[in-house]
Amino acid sequence: MFLQSYDRSDLILLSGGLGPTEDDLTKEIVAEALELPLVKDEKAWEMLQSYFVRFHRPMAKNNEKQAFVPQGCKALYNENGTAPGILIEKDGKIIVILPGPPGELYPMFEEQVIPYLKSRSDKVLVSKMIKVVGVGESNSEMMLLDLIDGQENPTIATYAKVGEVHIRVTAQADSEEEANALLAPTVSEVCARMGKHVFTIEEDVTLELAISEKLIAEGKTLAIAESCTGGLLSGRLIGAAGISACYKEGFITYANEAKEKYLHVSRNTLETYGAVSEECAFEMCKGALEASGADYALVTTGVAGPGASENKPAGLVYIGVGTPDGIMVYENHFRGTRQNIRERSVATALTRLWLSLNEEKA
Amino acid sequence: MFLQSYDRSDLILLSGGLGPTEDDLTKEIVAEALELPLVKDEKAWEMLQSYFVRFHRPMAKNNEKQAFVPQGCKALYNENGTAPGILIEKDGKIIVILPGPPGELYPMFEEQVIPYLKSRSDKVLVSKMIKVVGVGESNSEMMLLDLIDGQENPTIATYAKVGEVHIRVTAQADSEEEANALLAPTVSEVCARMGKHVFTIEEDVTLELAISEKLIAEGKTLAIAESCTGGLLSGRLIGAAGISACYKEGFITYANEAKEKYLHVSRNTLETYGAVSEECAFEMCKGALEASGADYALVTTGVAGPGASENKPAGLVYIGVGTPDGIMVYENHFRGTRQNIRERSVATALTRLWLSLNEEKA
Repeated sequence: MFLQSYDRSDLILLSGGLGPTEDDLTKEIVAEALELPLVKDEKAWEMLQSYFVRFHRPMAKNNEKQAFVPQGCKALYNENGTAPGILIEKDGKIIVILPGPPGELYPMFEEQVIPYLKSRSDKVLVSKMIKVVGVGESNSEMMLLDLIDGQENPTIATYAKVGEVHIRVTAQADSEEEANALLAPTVSEVCARMGKHVFTIEEDVTLELAISEKLIAEGKTLAIAESCTGGLLSGRLIGAAGISACYKEGFITYANEAKEKYLHVSRNTLETYGAVSEECAFEMCKGALEASGADYALVTTGVAGPGASENKPAGLVYIGVGTPDGIMVYENHFRGTRQNIRERSVATALTRLWLSLNEEKA
Repeated sequence: MFLQSYDRSDLILLSGGLGPTEDDLTKEIVAEALELPLVKDEKAWEMLQSYFVRFHRPMAKNNEKQAFVPQGCKALYNENGTAPGILIEKDGKIIVILPGPPGELYPMFEEQVIPYLKSRSDKVLVSKMIKVVGVGESNSEMMLLDLIDGQENPTIATYAKVGEVHIRVTAQADSEEEANALLAPTVSEVCARMGKHVFTIEEDVTLELAISEKLIAEGKTLAIAESCTGGLLSGRLIGAAGISACYKEGFITYANEAKEKYLHVSRNTLETYGAVSEECAFEMCKGALEASGADYALVTTGVAGPGASENKPAGLVYIGVGTPDGIMVYENHFRGTRQNIRERSVATALTRLWLSLNEEKA
């Protein structure tokens, strides 16, 4: 299998199977196929030992094999785990072996493999990622169809994400400046068409980061109250570096009792309309604004399932957005598993907040 | 590329590229390669239309192509999205095309593809997944090495997950009963060796579900207070169906102000030791137990980075577990990105709670 890939490809990327256990065989197979002996890499061995010392863990005997690499390769040292990656150049071909855990693979790929591959190419590819919320992939494509079909450099491709569409504009040129110059008019045109739905044109900016930066720029603060999303909404927001400057506090009021105690939702509302209702979302929003003193509040209450009834099917989720101008409540019907419904609720809540934050400027 | 796979394989699984846009070409390529015309599937077309009606969204014109399938195939109807999957049998070979989004792919694979594939095999494979926390993959394997090496049916394989190790024991036999009988002694032996570290032997039981079931069985309740994990810990717990019976409330006290206001952490502690300290974690735990009236509390406070100082490096996380017998605080040093550190904090907090819940029985 490996030799088959080796025969027909110039670049082979492998991931996983670098662990310490007996069924971790990627490195061993590649070394055998290419007839390279495995030798101990002293720097990898040192890093492995200090990894275990630093994390106050005993090293199992079988971890030692992780310090062995095929002779003549370039070891890709691993700051986030125990297995070094491996880069082999042979017969004009390149083989890259990466650890499987995403927390090790991604940084190694970005920090070590991409710069290496770039250094081997004389053409430059530059992309801008225009990320939008509140418009589906099909509609985004329809709005851009003439641009997508009408040009070859830059190219435009759309990607559907949970609650977002990412529009990648890519130009190829001899230099980065030239590529950027090719990109600029198309990026401007796409942004103009998508309007306030665009939250960033940077690859590594998330919706939560865009929201955080917007709040900070305006000196505003935010409070969160979650029922059905149970912490996931806060969890995503708090993933944004710098959020502490605008995030005041969060309440996870999964039980009715907690909705009354911390957000002063009235017993009457809970008994008359239920916790999954427009009225409850409104009062949660009001209560979160009052208890926290924040400028904005974002709340969720819904049925992620199981526990649905005929009136309140799984997927019915109310999202409340409290702003200095008033409180808006949105009714949503999501589909999928318990987890899907929660993720879509989080994505939609962040979208509503983003659109509210940008509405005001108009 | 597809024809190459078709030549050498009996079963081809493809995923992605079934979307409505112009670069979604999987189905088109396969149909062309196998010389099958694309025809409209009336049931898929109906489902597609009702999907848009149900979600109150306008259908873009290019969505229509999603109702087309290669002639003679079996359509795999999609309850969770717009693209049906496709199953083709041709020349004794099987081609399965699945939608890319995980929320559509997983249920379709589990509910439709697995039963189909099982129906085509006369051997039965049965697995048990023994999931453990608080022991690394290397150490788990060392503890089981004689079992792993000493037998061929059942087989044992270990998988490292964030904060967990999954030990899969698989038996092959002519019938399910026979396979189960082969599995039983090995499963018992593995469980005996791993002791209280085992939280389930069921594939689909998560650590949060095991914790939820344990708390409910004992009639106990839980409160959460999160600083650095910012809602992710609650979010994971609330992913467990039935959690509302034991989860009382959660506080996201990212700011010091919120730690004082809701958890009564003393200003003196915050000023003398800082928010990332054993003392603060202890007081957060005490405050969460008191404010909520819960039997157990689980709290986190740490540096996920950036914003690290020399004394408080990124990755330093204190986890507090409040139990009816007292409060324990654990110091941790995690590595990786901001997101990695948070995920490991969540996994470790749940591990500590699981071990505490099971300690008491001894």
